Amino acid sequence: MLPCTSLPQAPQVVGILGGMGPAAGADFVRLFVQACTDRMGALGIPVHDQAYPEHWLAQVPIPDRTAALHDTRPGAHQPADPMLQATGRLAALGARVVAIACNTAHAWHGLLQQRFPQMTVLHGVQEVAADLALRHVHGVGLLATQGAYEAGLYQRELKHRDIDCFVPEPPERDQLMQGIYDGVKAGNYALARQRFESVSLVLQQRYGVSTLIMGCTEIPLALSEHPRLEGLTLVNPSLVLAAALARHAYGNVAQDFLPAAQ
Amino acid sequence: MLPCTSLPQAPQVVGILGGMGPAAGADFVRLFVQACTDRMGALGIPVHDQAYPEHWLAQVPIPDRTAALHDTRPGAHQPADPMLQATGRLAALGARVVAIACNTAHAWHGLLQQRFPQMTVLHGVQEVAADLALRHVHGVGLLATQGAYEAGLYQRELKHRDIDCFVPEPPERDQLMQGIYDGVKAGNYALARQRFESVSLVLQQRYGVSTLIMGCTEIPLALSEHPRLEGLTLVNPSLVLAAALARHAYGNVAQDFLPAAQ
Repeated sequence: MLPCTSLPQAPQVVGILGGMGPAAGADFVRLFVQACTDRMGALGIPVHDQAYPEHWLAQVPIPDRTAALHDTRPGAHQPADPMLQATGRLAALGARVVAIACNTAHAWHGLLQQRFPQMTVLHGVQEVAADLALRHVHGVGLLATQGAYEAGLYQRELKHRDIDCFVPEPPERDQLMQGIYDGVKAGNYALARQRFESVSLVLQQRYGVSTLIMGCTEIPLALSEHPRLEGLTLVNPSLVLAAALARHAYGNVAQDFLPAAQ
Repeated sequence: MLPCTSLPQAPQVVGILGGMGPAAGADFVRLFVQACTDRMGALGIPVHDQAYPEHWLAQVPIPDRTAALHDTRPGAHQPADPMLQATGRLAALGARVVAIACNTAHAWHGLLQQRFPQMTVLHGVQEVAADLALRHVHGVGLLATQGAYEAGLYQRELKHRDIDCFVPEPPERDQLMQGIYDGVKAGNYALARQRFESVSLVLQQRYGVSTLIMGCTEIPLALSEHPRLEGLTLVNPSLVLAAALARHAYGNVAQDFLPAAQ
């Protein structure tokens, strides 16, 4: 056995808090693995199975986030407890950085970060706002859940970055909720696609935006760029968050983990 | 709080042992979530986030399986210890059933099942053989790693089911290993596809088989049915194993979890 000090510094162990919904959690892992492959390419690390960061995906049943943001009575069925419990278990597994694979669940980000100060809980919405600012985007349309709209999750972070955020009207929000709940979460992707496309075109026409944030992890599972949405750039927050998680995972990789020093 | 006895029996907690490679582990979760959606459909359970079984994916760095099957000297870098450790952690998380998202790693299935008798460790290769027998398939071609060929993993289980198993010659096995290691595991999917297709066509022509087992989790990531492979049915063992895991997860769901009894 080599003494600990001479062991190469491997990537950090990371955790993914999923289950909101499970298909989105699975897709997030796919995006994270791809982001790690890209990161290794950028760092000059040869890509092989053992060069990926250890990562754990928790797909646990968590009460609905939008419903909870509506019903704030004491005792109401809240997602906070199962989210805290799963995050604690990811911490016990050794995770130093955690990503939440659900946009609306970021309403509880502060609580999670406060309860687990030893870990970095990434803020996906802040990552997206920072990414858009870096790309000099000045205005976006927002597709999200009713809960995310009402909690102002994206509106607040985009305002900090001086990015205008255009949101749909109540009947269009209902269409999105149908696409998310009766569509993706119920396995009806055709319905979901129709609802998401319809609201996307409305936002494009009404506000003249050319960038749309797919601000619910279910939306990119059914909506993708194609001829009907020509002229629209669809931002997938999971992609941005997965890249941030990969950056953190390899952030402390010592030079002796790199091939040049071996 | 309801007393425990009157709580509806939720699906069982399940674990997925991945990281071999990580892209295949991510894809396995996707297939498992889809299998759960299908299972709920068959059982008449309305599909929503909270109706999925709690599941945990462990993507840990595990030494190469084929290399380990070649080097059996004491002290050689073996995958058994990290596989046992990760399986133990899945058990500690409450998993009652575990699936191994790697065909070649099934060489250690017996060890894992023996050390964790309180859990069911599914045997993916046996599941595939049983599935083929059920579909009255009498002969198949096998695409796999060198390690899986040498350990006779599929050959043995197929023989039990009276299914003829045709394997490639050494130079073709080298092509498959290139596709798996220099291809998928190194992020070069075009190379992988070319190698896998080439060996598939050889097996089809030489042995007249119309069914091929993609007996390494990396293969279906780069190979899929298309015109060049006309007349070939490609069996994805991950799909069969994911369906088995979903069946086990919902196997003990009591009637009072079903909507009719609520």
